[in-house]
Amino acid sequence: MNEKSLIKLIKSSLQSSYIGDDCAYLKDLGIVVTQDSLVEDVHFKRDLITPFQLGYKTVMVNISDVCASGAEPKYLTISLSLPDTVDENFVKEFYDGAKNAAEDVKIVGGDLTGSDKIYISASAIGSDTGRKISSRSNAKDGYKIIVSGEHGSSAYGLALLLKNNLSPDERFNNKFVNAHLMPAAQREFSREIAENIKDDYAMMDTSDGLADALMQIAQASRVTIDIETSKILHDPIVDMDTVLYGGEDYQLVAAVPKYILKNTDAYTIIGDVKTGNAGLVIDGKSYTDIDNKLYKHFKE
Amino acid sequence: MNEKSLIKLIKSSLQSSYIGDDCAYLKDLGIVVTQDSLVEDVHFKRDLITPFQLGYKTVMVNISDVCASGAEPKYLTISLSLPDTVDENFVKEFYDGAKNAAEDVKIVGGDLTGSDKIYISASAIGSDTGRKISSRSNAKDGYKIIVSGEHGSSAYGLALLLKNNLSPDERFNNKFVNAHLMPAAQREFSREIAENIKDDYAMMDTSDGLADALMQIAQASRVTIDIETSKILHDPIVDMDTVLYGGEDYQLVAAVPKYILKNTDAYTIIGDVKTGNAGLVIDGKSYTDIDNKLYKHFKE
Repeated sequence: MNEKSLIKLIKSSLQSSYIGDDCAYLKDLGIVVTQDSLVEDVHFKRDLITPFQLGYKTVMVNISDVCASGAEPKYLTISLSLPDTVDENFVKEFYDGAKNAAEDVKIVGGDLTGSDKIYISASAIGSDTGRKISSRSNAKDGYKIIVSGEHGSSAYGLALLLKNNLSPDERFNNKFVNAHLMPAAQREFSREIAENIKDDYAMMDTSDGLADALMQIAQASRVTIDIETSKILHDPIVDMDTVLYGGEDYQLVAAVPKYILKNTDAYTIIGDVKTGNAGLVIDGKSYTDIDNKLYKHFKE
Repeated sequence: MNEKSLIKLIKSSLQSSYIGDDCAYLKDLGIVVTQDSLVEDVHFKRDLITPFQLGYKTVMVNISDVCASGAEPKYLTISLSLPDTVDENFVKEFYDGAKNAAEDVKIVGGDLTGSDKIYISASAIGSDTGRKISSRSNAKDGYKIIVSGEHGSSAYGLALLLKNNLSPDERFNNKFVNAHLMPAAQREFSREIAENIKDDYAMMDTSDGLADALMQIAQASRVTIDIETSKILHDPIVDMDTVLYGGEDYQLVAAVPKYILKNTDAYTIIGDVKTGNAGLVIDGKSYTDIDNKLYKHFKE
């Protein structure tokens, strides 16, 4: 099963203009909506994440999608399917983690069913009030590419976890492991752009990798995105392939007009949008397809 | 794992006033939202339902929750987790069924991941424009209990399916099997009430059984609901226990003031709301707990 070809099939089957961005923008209701799932042994291993961390990550993954749209995250529903082997403590700790990540976003519902493995699906709703909503097809010639935070830390943390030789203490105090298990949605970056920008712009989270997000924007906008890897923030221990293609950092990347740029630590300018083939130029080398380089989940 | 006690735990953990009804009513956004999951071998067996029927039922189950709130169903997201053994045809037929059930409700997103079994979670959004939104705690002394359609057909159909001696033709042309595999959300009943009612009212779908819905309303509203079983529509072949406690008919039951009642085929008046113990009176006999009588899924 190839996820991208199946999504193409669904898109053509539904003939929906809404599908394509991280969130669907429902203009008549003034909201965006997204839904993302975490499946045991596909997106996480039960022995490598605590229930608290799992609740935390579930919420952040969905809030991150809302942030990518530029909307203000407001509400969440969470659907939990749990095996008999999971007890009340799991549920309590999961929701403690979910609440901790949600902050002022309200968890307002969902359901609870049995299952063989842990299966979590959450849906988040954001409001467009006072915000300009992004679309990945909005990158334009002359726009700058800006990126929040460091990249590659999450994938590096996953690699550490999978080696499985960390003590429990090391696990909880490791920067990279925390980046993987407890990513932080970039609410401030999103708010700063969406409240102040006047023109159409593109924004995505880097859940599937920074290079993948840039390629999605380039292809949807039919532009060339030209970046310099030396400008991308990352821990010096992490190699550039992991920085570009490792996923789940849940940072934001945006293509924005120059007037919005500030002298700030909140983001780094890593490149430019240009006319040309729909694709990437990375340190002078052109790419129109990077699928073979992308991060894989535990199982696809 | 007892679902009701876990939901109590979640409710107290979240301290959320939103959790309790089939939908959460987000007044500031003018919307209701619900999320419901269908899990293979818990809610359905892969060899007893076609992909088309599964897509159809997924959508109807979620639209039914929106109808129970009185809101107008507008948008859906669907998250699909599929094993490798499921092919492109499954996805195509699933979405054909989903679209068929959705009618003018738009499917606007969701995600697609791998898994060991089929997990489906959908979220539906409805608008409160021109509609009065229900709550199960709104039943009041003197209100009438009204119910749409026939009850018990879905559970009877499930029993037929599980006997597993129907030919494919019999399966597709059997009224009871169709009631189970392809329930119809009661959009018109919901619209008729929600557009015309001026006062607070209670409404639920009967997904967990007619008696369970009535008990939920009685307990949340702290009233006695007194019904006569002879008034409940059902196929003569279906016994009264299945009519009352069999689930998944996805009809609507409401407690409404008398002035809203019309001489109509759209619903049947089956009883009254009275002051007294929070519970049911069925044909003169009192019940404050019916949990041991309720319909069970394949596995809980």
